[in-house]
Amino acid sequence: RHQGMAKNTYMRWRLPLVCLLWEVAMIVLFGVFVRFGAEADAHWEEEKREMNLTSDIENDFYFRYPSFQDVHVMIFVGFGFLMTFLKRYGFGAVGFNFLLAAFGIQWALLMQGWFHSFKDGKIFIGVENLINADFCVGSVCIAFGAILGKTSPIQLLVMTLFQVTLFSVNEYILLNLLHVKDAGGSMTIHTFGAYFGLTVTRILYRPNLEQVHIQNATLAGGVAVGTSAEMMLTPYGSLIVGSISGIVSTVGYVYFTPFLESRLHIQDTCGIHNLHAMPGLIGGIVGAITAAAATEDVYGKEGFIKAFDFTGVYQTRTPSIQGGFQAAGIVVSLLMAFVGGAIVGGILKLPIWGDAAAENCFEDGVYWEVPEDEESDVYHMHNPDKPASP
Amino acid sequence: RHQGMAKNTYMRWRLPLVCLLWEVAMIVLFGVFVRFGAEADAHWEEEKREMNLTSDIENDFYFRYPSFQDVHVMIFVGFGFLMTFLKRYGFGAVGFNFLLAAFGIQWALLMQGWFHSFKDGKIFIGVENLINADFCVGSVCIAFGAILGKTSPIQLLVMTLFQVTLFSVNEYILLNLLHVKDAGGSMTIHTFGAYFGLTVTRILYRPNLEQVHIQNATLAGGVAVGTSAEMMLTPYGSLIVGSISGIVSTVGYVYFTPFLESRLHIQDTCGIHNLHAMPGLIGGIVGAITAAAATEDVYGKEGFIKAFDFTGVYQTRTPSIQGGFQAAGIVVSLLMAFVGGAIVGGILKLPIWGDAAAENCFEDGVYWEVPEDEESDVYHMHNPDKPASP
Amino acid sequence: RHQGMAKNTYMRWRLPLVCLLWEVAMIVLFGVFVRFGAEADAHWEEEKREMNLTSDIENDFYFRYPSFQDVHVMIFVGFGFLMTFLKRYGFGAVGFNFLLAAFGIQWALLMQGWFHSFKDGKIFIGVENLINADFCVGSVCIAFGAILGKTSPIQLLVMTLFQVTLFSVNEYILLNLLHVKDAGGSMTIHTFGAYFGLTVTRILYRPNLEQVHIQNATLAGGVAVGTSAEMMLTPYGSLIVGSISGIVSTVGYVYFTPFLESRLHIQDTCGIHNLHAMPGLIGGIVGAITAAAATEDVYGKEGFIKAFDFTGVYQTRTPSIQGGFQAAGIVVSLLMAFVGGAIVGGILKLPIWGDAAAENCFEDGVYWEVPEDEESDVYHMHNPDKPASP
Repeated sequence: RHQGMAKNTYMRWRLPLVCLLWEVAMIVLFGVFVRFGAEADAHWEEEKREMNLTSDIENDFYFRYPSFQDVHVMIFVGFGFLMTFLKRYGFGAVGFNFLLAAFGIQWALLMQGWFHSFKDGKIFIGVENLINADFCVGSVCIAFGAILGKTSPIQLLVMTLFQVTLFSVNEYILLNLLHVKDAGGSMTIHTFGAYFGLTVTRILYRPNLEQVHIQNATLAGGVAVGTSAEMMLTPYGSLIVGSISGIVSTVGYVYFTPFLESRLHIQDTCGIHNLHAMPGLIGGIVGAITAAAATEDVYGKEGFIKAFDFTGVYQTRTPSIQGGFQAAGIVVSLLMAFVGGAIVGGILKLPIWGDAAAENCFEDGVYWEVPEDEESDVYHMHNPDKPASP
Repeated sequence: RHQGMAKNTYMRWRLPLVCLLWEVAMIVLFGVFVRFGAEADAHWEEEKREMNLTSDIENDFYFRYPSFQDVHVMIFVGFGFLMTFLKRYGFGAVGFNFLLAAFGIQWALLMQGWFHSFKDGKIFIGVENLINADFCVGSVCIAFGAILGKTSPIQLLVMTLFQVTLFSVNEYILLNLLHVKDAGGSMTIHTFGAYFGLTVTRILYRPNLEQVHIQNATLAGGVAVGTSAEMMLTPYGSLIVGSISGIVSTVGYVYFTPFLESRLHIQDTCGIHNLHAMPGLIGGIVGAITAAAATEDVYGKEGFIKAFDFTGVYQTRTPSIQGGFQAAGIVVSLLMAFVGGAIVGGILKLPIWGDAAAENCFEDGVYWEVPEDEESDVYHMHNPDKPASP
Repeated sequence: RHQGMAKNTYMRWRLPLVCLLWEVAMIVLFGVFVRFGAEADAHWEEEKREMNLTSDIENDFYFRYPSFQDVHVMIFVGFGFLMTFLKRYGFGAVGFNFLLAAFGIQWALLMQGWFHSFKDGKIFIGVENLINADFCVGSVCIAFGAILGKTSPIQLLVMTLFQVTLFSVNEYILLNLLHVKDAGGSMTIHTFGAYFGLTVTRILYRPNLEQVHIQNATLAGGVAVGTSAEMMLTPYGSLIVGSISGIVSTVGYVYFTPFLESRLHIQDTCGIHNLHAMPGLIGGIVGAITAAAATEDVYGKEGFIKAFDFTGVYQTRTPSIQGGFQAAGIVVSLLMAFVGGAIVGGILKLPIWGDAAAENCFEDGVYWEVPEDEESDVYHMHNPDKPASP
């Protein structure tokens, strides 16, 4: 019934080969560039003595491990299961998400390391690098949501390679060149990740696809306070932003996703436009407004400087100028997403990556050896009165 | 086959309207009353300087974030999935639990804030307030277990509004007026929450309901050491209390739940009498005994004063008097549960909240748009030889 | 169709009786031996004053609670769900895993306590003891994976009793007598646990069993860096070890597990030879090599001494000698596993423990009251055109 993995996509040998090449490249690059930072290895004992610390609790690890737990589980497990709503694509959602996260996080450690943790020719990593690399991969998981069920695992790895690269460049432009604040990643993770994925899925448009949607509006509020997470949005401000995002996201599932598909030919499998793109934009805008409205009165003198890092060359930057740069950050993220997504989408369209035929989309059977009785269950369920064939 | 949400319960417009009104009220009240505490916002930098702190690790957030992770996941995810054992009510269990938790936590922040964190006309909140509000909502989740599958989402929101209010009053009476210790909430959360829910379900009694029970006895031990969690119950004391609660709870599922239904007309969908009510009572009693038996010898002088907060006006309180007050705390919690539950049950019985007809109880189809093939699966499964109708 | 629990295994009365006896013994032993350590109870206030500490954050609990969260959830929930891939043995996998973990952790607290936390006739416990006891039970969960679906809950409890005992002896030999480092438990947990379980399942060999395998290769990398987790394996070293283990593990599922069953009569239900045994061995070997190659240059002087605890009588131990002792640790773990597993397997083979007949293996129905319609579902699914019989 299905063509089977080996027959029509040749994944059985090509995927392990691609993974092997990727991993060998990573090992070589890690060997040349990556070392543990002083807090992450045996040098911690020296560090402690030199900094006159009395307790291990001052080690960054203890501050950040609970955050690492949260984000790591979210990226490797949460995103996968969030995308298991397609009845016959559960293996693909969980398995391919795990695959791209496992390979993407290594490349993210290198890319972000070169930009932010590079010293004397080496990248020194600790738990904070793992957290940031997880978030970088998160933007790929978001884009995966738009193309879920329509691409081969090799296409996903190719997309991961390019998207992690572009993410790191965009992040560097925003955080270092524009000196923009984006604590929760509304712009760098959600806006960039979602519009990148939507552009890719537009390029990969296939007529004649059908799908079973569910709502993810519950998460939209969190996305939309991302940029301003460390600004003084106030509790009621958070409620307002969360309510608006929840409503926008829910309404989007009902009215906007069908419009995107029928008019713009954007097939958004998981509805990431509702959960990430629009709330991400709202978050970016809220961040720009909150920054522009900041006063020393509200933040306290030290808090004001700390919140926006108004030190060194940025000592003279005013809140309204900061608001302008925040807005510029949104525009840059969108440009990177559209241009980058178009190019990467074009690359993924090349007929060499083993993607499934249109009629086999959203079917685990193309890439997984689904047990016979599993399948017959499913088909039997869908057509109780007919023989077990689609 | 099912009447559908819009036709017989009019939820499609009434629920969003109720939610909108609730949220607007919250935003106004948060705007008037709620501010971030000094450790939760930009003022932390000033705080640090003024208190001469050298490290961010002294910030309350780092102490308490792992506890917040646990309780927040338990309330928003754990309770929902604990109640998914009804075959055709999984959406209702997870979705409505999320709904009541999301709205309840906001009202709980206000109610508990007015009682415990009110200063100069404002409520100052931080991570500890979120933990306490989560626990408050936990008592609503417990009560939800008794009425699972038999009420509309609007009824649940009405119950949440009243129960959070009563919880906060009861908590204030116990912790502040009676100066009772209840670290793990045996009395305030479990005894109050469970007997409140059981009273409500008694008032809402419907003849002719059937159900598929499972056992939750594994959790009973934790409920029963709640009150004495910060007292010196000793390790073997914990084992004894845990074993007894486990046995009581398991026996309860076999003998007590059927008795409650047939003789007292208390339909307890999840068996919360076994998992929360009886273990909660045991916990309250164990706490009273452990308090009455406390000596400076066992606790150490400072530990003794700290454990029971025997300072200020309570400096002269003796362990046996404390034991008496602990016992009074149980009685007050039960009274609040019975009287409050009866009144709220009466309100919920009004025919204006869109509850499902008896024959549609425990069916997601009444309030959710269940995919057609999902439903046909289920019906087909249950009646393999009959046409797909209930 | 099924014989039912009461009829052919007499579990309905024997299991509660065994549990009751075990728990009474635990309560007596805890009463005699176990007390809370100073950081875990009311004496913390004194401790703080005496040690001149200013903050609760110095309490061990705050350091270690996030680690405890991880390991406790992994043992009590993770292992159970990892083993639910057998279609009709989900209750058995989750329920029996919980059972053996709950009883095993109590015995582990005692055994490890006598070896490591015994002072003035008492065992003083805190959060670190819970973490270590969880890991000890982890080795039983691993062994459970090999015999999943083929043993009665009483057999599992008997195995738990013996395996926890042997684990503690082996751990004492390695950590205290050989002064070996095994931070992540490659040797003590994975190598010992897996080869113990494989030996037991060899002794319990049953011809004519069939099974539906899945892959767990994703976890193999973590197992294989266990021993060297606190040594300077370097980031690229970790990538190499992880890649090799992942490949070995995956290849093992395809070629090695069938070989083990057909030639050596080792029926390894979950494929623990791939996920734990081989990666555990690799981890032990990597640890020995990494230790032998250690230099003060790489670790820093203090870090070098700290990493291998080269203090007191071990002050003169060199890296190459340490490497030799590490290798000896592997051999001891294997010997304990083979000899212990053979003896315990022999005990479990006695016809008094209520194990299911061969044709009822991998069936929840033998030990659980599976709802009728649940079962009919399953059978109906597997044989849509035949009457519901296996």
